Amino acid sequence: MRNSVVKKINSAAIGVDIGGTNVRLGLVGLEGKVLFRDSFATHQPSGKKALLGAILRRLRDLMRVASEHGLEVVGVGIGAPGAIDTEKGMVYFFPNIPGWKDTPLKSILERRLGVPVAVDNDANAMAYGEFCFGAGKGVKTLIALTLGTGVGGGLIIDGKLFHGSRFSAAELGHMVLNEDGPLCTCGNRGCIETYVGNGYFIREVRRRLKKFPHSLLTLELRKGKELTPLLVAQTARRGDALSKEMWLETGAHLGNALAGLANLLNPEKIILGGGIAQNGDLLFKPVIASLNKKAFPIAASSVRVVPAALGVDAGLIGAAALMFRDSGESRK
Amino acid sequence: MRNSVVKKINSAAIGVDIGGTNVRLGLVGLEGKVLFRDSFATHQPSGKKALLGAILRRLRDLMRVASEHGLEVVGVGIGAPGAIDTEKGMVYFFPNIPGWKDTPLKSILERRLGVPVAVDNDANAMAYGEFCFGAGKGVKTLIALTLGTGVGGGLIIDGKLFHGSRFSAAELGHMVLNEDGPLCTCGNRGCIETYVGNGYFIREVRRRLKKFPHSLLTLELRKGKELTPLLVAQTARRGDALSKEMWLETGAHLGNALAGLANLLNPEKIILGGGIAQNGDLLFKPVIASLNKKAFPIAASSVRVVPAALGVDAGLIGAAALMFRDSGESRK
Repeated sequence: MRNSVVKKINSAAIGVDIGGTNVRLGLVGLEGKVLFRDSFATHQPSGKKALLGAILRRLRDLMRVASEHGLEVVGVGIGAPGAIDTEKGMVYFFPNIPGWKDTPLKSILERRLGVPVAVDNDANAMAYGEFCFGAGKGVKTLIALTLGTGVGGGLIIDGKLFHGSRFSAAELGHMVLNEDGPLCTCGNRGCIETYVGNGYFIREVRRRLKKFPHSLLTLELRKGKELTPLLVAQTARRGDALSKEMWLETGAHLGNALAGLANLLNPEKIILGGGIAQNGDLLFKPVIASLNKKAFPIAASSVRVVPAALGVDAGLIGAAALMFRDSGESRK
Repeated sequence: MRNSVVKKINSAAIGVDIGGTNVRLGLVGLEGKVLFRDSFATHQPSGKKALLGAILRRLRDLMRVASEHGLEVVGVGIGAPGAIDTEKGMVYFFPNIPGWKDTPLKSILERRLGVPVAVDNDANAMAYGEFCFGAGKGVKTLIALTLGTGVGGGLIIDGKLFHGSRFSAAELGHMVLNEDGPLCTCGNRGCIETYVGNGYFIREVRRRLKKFPHSLLTLELRKGKELTPLLVAQTARRGDALSKEMWLETGAHLGNALAGLANLLNPEKIILGGGIAQNGDLLFKPVIASLNKKAFPIAASSVRVVPAALGVDAGLIGAAALMFRDSGESRK
């Protein structure tokens, strides 16, 4: 697109982050700021047709808002939780949202909205958001890792989102860290996800609690608090041995995994996001110590391990940024 | 370079594969055929100056041969066993050849020879050779793995040799396969190299021999045969239980590692070269079975695991191909 400077200033894209729980939408400016936002529960409208209808309605609302504010919408970018053919904009399937098998989402939305649409995997969108406007700004090669219930991520290679030969690259949670390790949901043993995912973390704390019946954490739980990584971070900071041990071990496992990734891809940055990663030095210190010890010196000294900067907005900002890329408005 | 068709037909590049044992040189045509070749023992000329002198002499000989045959040498590509800044053509160091710290090899050779020179890591050169003219022809994203004394390799990402942010990418042997595994030469535990390298293979066979005092392999060794992967392949084919077990286990380990790499990079091909890989189905069958079982279905079905096609020539052909790339004569 050839835009005049004036037009550029007045351009924006809409990003949509379809999650298993919520759909988040935002009108995003060229600098990556969310100018207007919207969201709704993914399973509120039951079934694919209703969900698609709800997304379309909200998109039209945001397009109207944009137009009222003199903003030209260059397109809509979607981050979606499943296997996507990003070239065709086709959803192969969503593991946690039924009914979407083989949906040509890009062409459906383009026909209904009359603007260009891009569709990518949600973890890729997140990585792209951090790359364009967050912790990965100005970096050419990075790994973005999301430590949530599962562990996923995205790869930026030589300044571009990397998809692999059939769009399934960057399953960062499913590289083996211990062949003899615990069974993973994917059927393999000892995947990275089984050592640093939210699920593992909570299960492992629960298992160890029996050995620490008088720990600070046990007391907090008896008061009725919910067992979350955040609570374990709070008790660790108050000196609880079990809690501190959990962060040290989780960090050591993750650092070990990142050492292998650093040896393989020699990235400039590794960005950690998601629940577990929001506990600062408790996780980052042992991660970085383990990485520095285990990776080749040149790989270790090349890379900075940093927290994600865009929080829950990374996905929708990254999805919107897909359109800046496609319209040539942002960095290539 | 703008070459006429006639000139193109008459062009060639020289590839040099500097190994720990031998330096191999070849005049390589645009189709990847080695037209003339030469080699000498790496440590015969003692010291860096003598080695550099020997390489220069052989290069001038090959340039003369080229000219006598009406071939224009578009440049010299070097594959070298160590850490290289491929942009500057600078050798940081060779772990197994002393005295080369911070040698500006590209500029030295260009000044002395008057033709363009490219320098890259030897494993990268091998991967590039297989990509341009061997088992990876026509593929956009591939992993080439060399199973020698150590385990190394190269990555072709979206049709280009991938170097990472500081040229140290593709240390494929040093990703963790088992955090609790044996100590690796790199200081980490349970790296891929500790399960599928030549060294591991031979040590592990030797360890198990005690438990199989009457095995066919034991008998062969008593006859004075040397314990090599090839011998263990021969005895496996003759039904020896210990030997068969070794191939099955090595293949399972490697398949597990490749599953993680397939999940991460979703390549079209994984190319296996080096000593261990030259034993056909004995290795490839368990590797592929384990990969198919452990990788995500889409990643497993995207990828073909194949043997390297260029054998010991891969390095020098790939080094020469670096010049075809740089002169725009071959595929980008």
